[in-house]
Amino acid sequence: MPLDPALRAKILASVEAGFAEQIAFTQEMIRFGSLRGQEHACQDFVFRALRDRGLTMDRFGMDRAAIAAHPGGAPFSDEHSDAPIVVGIHHPREEVGRSLILQAHVDVVPTGPEKFWTHRPFDPVIEGDWLYGRGGADMKAGHAANLFCLDALRRIGLQPAATVYVQSVVEEESTGNGALMTHLRGYKADAVLIPEPEEEMLVRANTGVLWFQIEVRGVPMHVREMGAGANAIDAAYRVITALRGLEEEINAEKVGREHFENEAHPINLNIGKIEGGDWASSVPCWCKIDCRIGLYPGVSAESLARRIEDCVRGFARQDKFLANNPPQIDFNGFYSEGYVLEPGSEAEAVLGRAHEGSTGKPLKSFMTAGYLDTRVYALYDKIPALCYGPITENIHAFDERVSLASLKRITGTMALFVAEWCGVESIEG
Amino acid sequence: MPLDPALRAKILASVEAGFAEQIAFTQEMIRFGSLRGQEHACQDFVFRALRDRGLTMDRFGMDRAAIAAHPGGAPFSDEHSDAPIVVGIHHPREEVGRSLILQAHVDVVPTGPEKFWTHRPFDPVIEGDWLYGRGGADMKAGHAANLFCLDALRRIGLQPAATVYVQSVVEEESTGNGALMTHLRGYKADAVLIPEPEEEMLVRANTGVLWFQIEVRGVPMHVREMGAGANAIDAAYRVITALRGLEEEINAEKVGREHFENEAHPINLNIGKIEGGDWASSVPCWCKIDCRIGLYPGVSAESLARRIEDCVRGFARQDKFLANNPPQIDFNGFYSEGYVLEPGSEAEAVLGRAHEGSTGKPLKSFMTAGYLDTRVYALYDKIPALCYGPITENIHAFDERVSLASLKRITGTMALFVAEWCGVESIEG
Repeated sequence: MPLDPALRAKILASVEAGFAEQIAFTQEMIRFGSLRGQEHACQDFVFRALRDRGLTMDRFGMDRAAIAAHPGGAPFSDEHSDAPIVVGIHHPREEVGRSLILQAHVDVVPTGPEKFWTHRPFDPVIEGDWLYGRGGADMKAGHAANLFCLDALRRIGLQPAATVYVQSVVEEESTGNGALMTHLRGYKADAVLIPEPEEEMLVRANTGVLWFQIEVRGVPMHVREMGAGANAIDAAYRVITALRGLEEEINAEKVGREHFENEAHPINLNIGKIEGGDWASSVPCWCKIDCRIGLYPGVSAESLARRIEDCVRGFARQDKFLANNPPQIDFNGFYSEGYVLEPGSEAEAVLGRAHEGSTGKPLKSFMTAGYLDTRVYALYDKIPALCYGPITENIHAFDERVSLASLKRITGTMALFVAEWCGVESIEG
Repeated sequence: MPLDPALRAKILASVEAGFAEQIAFTQEMIRFGSLRGQEHACQDFVFRALRDRGLTMDRFGMDRAAIAAHPGGAPFSDEHSDAPIVVGIHHPREEVGRSLILQAHVDVVPTGPEKFWTHRPFDPVIEGDWLYGRGGADMKAGHAANLFCLDALRRIGLQPAATVYVQSVVEEESTGNGALMTHLRGYKADAVLIPEPEEEMLVRANTGVLWFQIEVRGVPMHVREMGAGANAIDAAYRVITALRGLEEEINAEKVGREHFENEAHPINLNIGKIEGGDWASSVPCWCKIDCRIGLYPGVSAESLARRIEDCVRGFARQDKFLANNPPQIDFNGFYSEGYVLEPGSEAEAVLGRAHEGSTGKPLKSFMTAGYLDTRVYALYDKIPALCYGPITENIHAFDERVSLASLKRITGTMALFVAEWCGVESIEG
């Protein structure tokens, strides 16, 4: 049932009243350079922030065996984070509404060369409407909004009339094992909302993502004897070319896939990192490439992994150098399926009203071609999984930034959503 | 005048008598992991070894201004070594023969991944006739031979009857500035011999070498927005393809060039090292490649450098992404011309006799397509510059090794060469 307009106005005013504090909190989060494996201090900060708000706290690590046994679990490489997952639990006095998970991740991607940045990457500078900083847009702004949409209710003496789990995870940028671990821990609710930077739109469909590393090795040689040796960097490039062929083949398979067939290029293969060789005057004997490719919902990570292996091995067999030096393929991260949010859920309807209430515009939805933790809740909890968040620019790039006006709007949406989805009760009985 | 056969036999027997000690000395040299910039301890070891043999010592650093002003000087990058150059000077009692420079370098190229090696790279293991180790073949075996050919004379009471400079340099594997510095210091002689690993042959012609680094930079992006960003790794490969075109063009110009036109592929472009990107799921915003290319004798480094710049810039102008992100080209090492050892010199004749005396076979000559310090003496001192040394395998590769039987033979050649070229006098007058 739609919120009473007076309550709606009161909630939005409360979001407004808390917004300066929310910005400061977001800035504090950005100052933690919570790169992969370095999220400990940031997660402890989140733990204190949730506990100080009176939530019941749970903190736990990865259950490697359980993750390895799960079809949505990603392999553990040496770089895998061992930072804890933090969950703050709100129980109402009376459980009358629908329960909710509010989730966000604290891990951020590398900054790249600092010289590309206008400000230092972890310095949360505000210029006009933009708040800068690595991880601010993706997704500490949304992370803080999870807390501050509840704060907005509390400020006016209200709290959700249903259980709410505030989950703070890691490994969203590399494996998705953090979100999976909350599922394996047994948490479940009637819906989940993850405020990723989604341009104030709702994610309708989302590709899965697979990570893999390919290493080419071969006999190194002095460059004067190049005929005898073989250049591993050149060979890696030939492998990339073969993979680009597979990418095109998979993109051609968009035909007949709703949410995908009208996209120009729904499946992206990214060669994200390369390293090879040791010396300009030595023929390189090794080259490693780090790759990422998307997959359509309904396609299992396993089946795409086999297809990639077949592609690389098939190409290598007919390549003079690679036939003797078969490339190593290591699936070293994301191993996840995509998902579709089927239209028509009550959760979506509530979010639509909340969005319109906060922004004055109807909620749009779209397909996004990057990994989202929402897949865990959609695929394995089978609950409405809503991914919706602020307008941003340059995520995974230099000068990453989030619009503060948008952040306030989506925080308003979230507060209205919680109030309607969970219902509200007064804090004091 | 050819050596007296009895003296020749006596000298070769003396080389034989000292050979166990020579191997041990060579092994001691290999144990120094004298990578670029890390040659200090090794050069001090060489200093002591020369001083203990009664040579007058000179030790000096690079005169950066003088090198920068010289057409054969290579640019100084941050990686440039600041280890000293060491020269041991022998003066005879009576200067009656022809003077000589015996030169060698102590710097070695990187090992590459240790897992490729059968033994640890700086562990000088002997198996059968092979002495293993990074830098053993290239060129500590020859370096030690410079000392031990003089020791062989001393052991039978003789010393060169002319000035001999024993030069131990650095930066041979990256710039050639060490050899150039000995020239700029003012050392000069009637001939030079450098015992690089040359398969018991004499280098007749040698390519120059140019090093350059190309950096491609562009706007980094989240992979889901790949259309908006541009992949710097992909762009770097397009640049490589353009450079391969230039390589073929230059190889086609072998026609009419003596020593080169019968070679299948005299000019090699090597992409020796590549690095780019930070994260599999971020579109890479930077990629650097380290390249090395040869050049024909008579072609100036400057002119090839301009040609490379023109090639890269011309290609970039018509490439959608690169036109807006012109690659940076940095000439960061070798900037050297090739040379030809004109046949008919007296020095070559003496070396030919010495070689035949030690090995029983006539001396062959050949073209080699890698940088040699001999170019400094050939081009700027304009003296006969002899590059001749032992049989080896896998230089700049894993399991680099030198044949001990060959090392003994070429040490014999060198001792005979010194005796005939410089003449000999008894140590005690």
